[in-house]
Amino acid sequence: MNISVIFYLLGWLLNTISALLLLPFVVSIYYKEPCGIYFLICSLIYFVIGFLLTKKRPKNQRFFAKEGFVVTALSWILLTITGCMPFFLSGEIPSLTNAMFECISGFTTTGASILNNVEGLSRCMNFWRCFIQWIGGMGVLVFMLALIPLTGGQDLYLMKAESPGPNVGKLAPKVRKTAYYLYSIYFALTMAEIISLFIAGMPLYDAVCTSFTTTSTGGFGVKSTSICEYSHAIQYVMCVFLFLSGMNYNFFFLAWIKRFKEAFSMEEIKGYVAFFWISVLLITVNLLNNGLGLEEGFRHSFFQVGSIITTAGFSSTDFDLWPAFSKTILVMLMLIGGCAGSTCGGIKVSRIMIYWKTVKKEVSQLCHPRNVKIIQIDGKPIPHNILRSANNFFIVYIMMFAISTLLISIDGFDLETNFTAVASAIGNIGPGLALVGPTKNFDLYSNFSKFVLMFDMLAGRLELFPLLVLLSPSTWRKH
Amino acid sequence: MNISVIFYLLGWLLNTISALLLLPFVVSIYYKEPCGIYFLICSLIYFVIGFLLTKKRPKNQRFFAKEGFVVTALSWILLTITGCMPFFLSGEIPSLTNAMFECISGFTTTGASILNNVEGLSRCMNFWRCFIQWIGGMGVLVFMLALIPLTGGQDLYLMKAESPGPNVGKLAPKVRKTAYYLYSIYFALTMAEIISLFIAGMPLYDAVCTSFTTTSTGGFGVKSTSICEYSHAIQYVMCVFLFLSGMNYNFFFLAWIKRFKEAFSMEEIKGYVAFFWISVLLITVNLLNNGLGLEEGFRHSFFQVGSIITTAGFSSTDFDLWPAFSKTILVMLMLIGGCAGSTCGGIKVSRIMIYWKTVKKEVSQLCHPRNVKIIQIDGKPIPHNILRSANNFFIVYIMMFAISTLLISIDGFDLETNFTAVASAIGNIGPGLALVGPTKNFDLYSNFSKFVLMFDMLAGRLELFPLLVLLSPSTWRKH
Repeated sequence: MNISVIFYLLGWLLNTISALLLLPFVVSIYYKEPCGIYFLICSLIYFVIGFLLTKKRPKNQRFFAKEGFVVTALSWILLTITGCMPFFLSGEIPSLTNAMFECISGFTTTGASILNNVEGLSRCMNFWRCFIQWIGGMGVLVFMLALIPLTGGQDLYLMKAESPGPNVGKLAPKVRKTAYYLYSIYFALTMAEIISLFIAGMPLYDAVCTSFTTTSTGGFGVKSTSICEYSHAIQYVMCVFLFLSGMNYNFFFLAWIKRFKEAFSMEEIKGYVAFFWISVLLITVNLLNNGLGLEEGFRHSFFQVGSIITTAGFSSTDFDLWPAFSKTILVMLMLIGGCAGSTCGGIKVSRIMIYWKTVKKEVSQLCHPRNVKIIQIDGKPIPHNILRSANNFFIVYIMMFAISTLLISIDGFDLETNFTAVASAIGNIGPGLALVGPTKNFDLYSNFSKFVLMFDMLAGRLELFPLLVLLSPSTWRKH
Repeated sequence: MNISVIFYLLGWLLNTISALLLLPFVVSIYYKEPCGIYFLICSLIYFVIGFLLTKKRPKNQRFFAKEGFVVTALSWILLTITGCMPFFLSGEIPSLTNAMFECISGFTTTGASILNNVEGLSRCMNFWRCFIQWIGGMGVLVFMLALIPLTGGQDLYLMKAESPGPNVGKLAPKVRKTAYYLYSIYFALTMAEIISLFIAGMPLYDAVCTSFTTTSTGGFGVKSTSICEYSHAIQYVMCVFLFLSGMNYNFFFLAWIKRFKEAFSMEEIKGYVAFFWISVLLITVNLLNNGLGLEEGFRHSFFQVGSIITTAGFSSTDFDLWPAFSKTILVMLMLIGGCAGSTCGGIKVSRIMIYWKTVKKEVSQLCHPRNVKIIQIDGKPIPHNILRSANNFFIVYIMMFAISTLLISIDGFDLETNFTAVASAIGNIGPGLALVGPTKNFDLYSNFSKFVLMFDMLAGRLELFPLLVLLSPSTWRKH
């Protein structure tokens, strides 16, 4: 293990956070909020530590997959600890565990909250809370590496460890270039949403915060009632941007360079669109049968499907009151999640497609053992190691799911609450059902359960393996 | 597809059922119950059809994996249809759907019931209901093939398709010999339990029926209250036999031929014992904290862990009233199930061990890509195709779980009810929680949902793939 390069990178991370903290500080000056001083204090402290750690570039820059996983896992833990300090020091979230929970829920774009009253936060704190999600959405490490000077293959390993989805780094041959494209698309989507929401009548502050948490599929908002109180026009604007945010960014990239045919023939996009609209249709019909009007039923159905499949977790209505069939569809969507190569959590549409094709192949091979079939996506065969790791991902996902549900059941809440709380945490969604439903929050759980859920959020965001590698004894054994 | 050999085998199956139906007929004579005449009528009808189908041995006896899966799936469907007729014709279960549900729940050793009042059945009918489980436990096809004269490799393919667990046919080089050993152990366990229960004070009729459904890990009983009303001594006897029934029969075989060291070093047995006793310990502690006495807490914990991990599904108390932690442990055990090579349902302990080792290997390989590790069980490397099919099994299990939960949620019951109903059906357990808890039954579901659950029970018993092969278009396409 190359310890010196790990500390060096963590130092750069501190410098990056130090810079990012200046933005909420500026917001606090604009709104004349004295608590903004804590952003400045934290920023200075992090800068001093970061400066000391990055003063000398390590001589040995050897960097492999192992270091990539460890740095990624440690960075995200460091993000949580450093990011939550303004909440805690200012006393706006008095419990350290709660401040950490809120912060990790932010960076992992989960959006689960322990706040009973979001409006009680000052504007700069809530800006930071939403901005955290925007940073976490695309990933901070890749962004950082696009700026700082390092050589030795770190960027590829870090990108692999941080980015969601089974295959990474397609857009451009160089990681730096890929990061540039991804951030450009991300930035463009966010700006387009801010403008659209503003035109639809949302106050600018709300529009900025909400756009941060839509394009990052985070789900934090500026109101305790999430999106319920906004106008229909605003809700429809968000529906559209939620739908877009669940797509694989390769799609936007291909559209950008005018390869439209390729973009629209991407199998994952087709699968995503199918999951999305079939769910909207089924839920709309189910809600109509339960007495809602067509416009209202369609709008809430469109909004909630978009909000849950992209794992954002906004609510336009209390869907915990919906009929069982609609709620069960939402739980399935929690597990599926959006496309790979988006900011979404969950298992991802492309993995579900791989599983489906694997099963079809298995059945056909049971009947015709001598017919060897190859699993393809977008006309290209999927390499064996990606298949294997997709399978293992699924197994670890379900195992972690089961163990977490068991651990938090010690608190004594019902199965539906615990099951959906874990689904929500590990899939980076936000609300669950029953006691953690859209009008409730996660504060009812004990500190122990909160730490379990924090672990799940982090594991879900980093797609499980970085944390397992960090915790595995074999990583730290000398060879 | 070799249709003629399929019909020939189905004919033999009818002959076998025809013979088996004579046993409840004898019981009806002993108890002087007139409804027993339906057993005789069915027996005769099945014999006539069976005789016609088996009169001529097919010339072409070509038989491969495909035929094995199709025959197995069709046989089990035929078992259901033929087996439920006495219930339906006698009017003791007036709805055909309910009669089929009860019968399929019997043959698959699930033990989920639609009966509100088990005591309302005549003795011969309830004997048949329990005897069905005993037949289904070890599998009827292998038994049949040990008796009828066929050549061409059918037995191996059928045994593979019908027997639970990732690897089959270890006991002896010949399938016929293996079947002989398995049935001998099965018979010995059943006899030992009948005698023990009788000594412990159970009436002989109850002892016979209960032993049928314990060793087959079925869970049907002669009372609506399952085992709650019997004495502590009887409950402890059942605890022991439940524990034994969850073990891999290889263990008993090795002990039989005095290879004790090998028997006790079987990794799956160690895993099973660990799961079992850790669960008993955790639940006992949890129940003590909730005010139960030590003896009572231990007894119910031992009984319910045994009943759920072996997927029998008896209840010694209403565990739906237990604290959330204990209930969540039971739900996990529903998914895990007993050992491969036993009569249990669920995913099986050996598969869980394979998954665990696969994940460990993946994590270590992520760090050290050049270290190639081989997954072993009992010191032997696991072949690639068994690993692959274990992974696919898991994926199909969870997918089927999700889709079934969604389908039965149309009826509008809560998530906990639907989730545990499906867990119970696909794992061949019996009771679930909430509205399908141990003191309730499955009659609340619509006919549509009952058919979904019947499919799940069958899929769970046959380990998913035979039914998928039967339903897959590629099976029926000409090549």
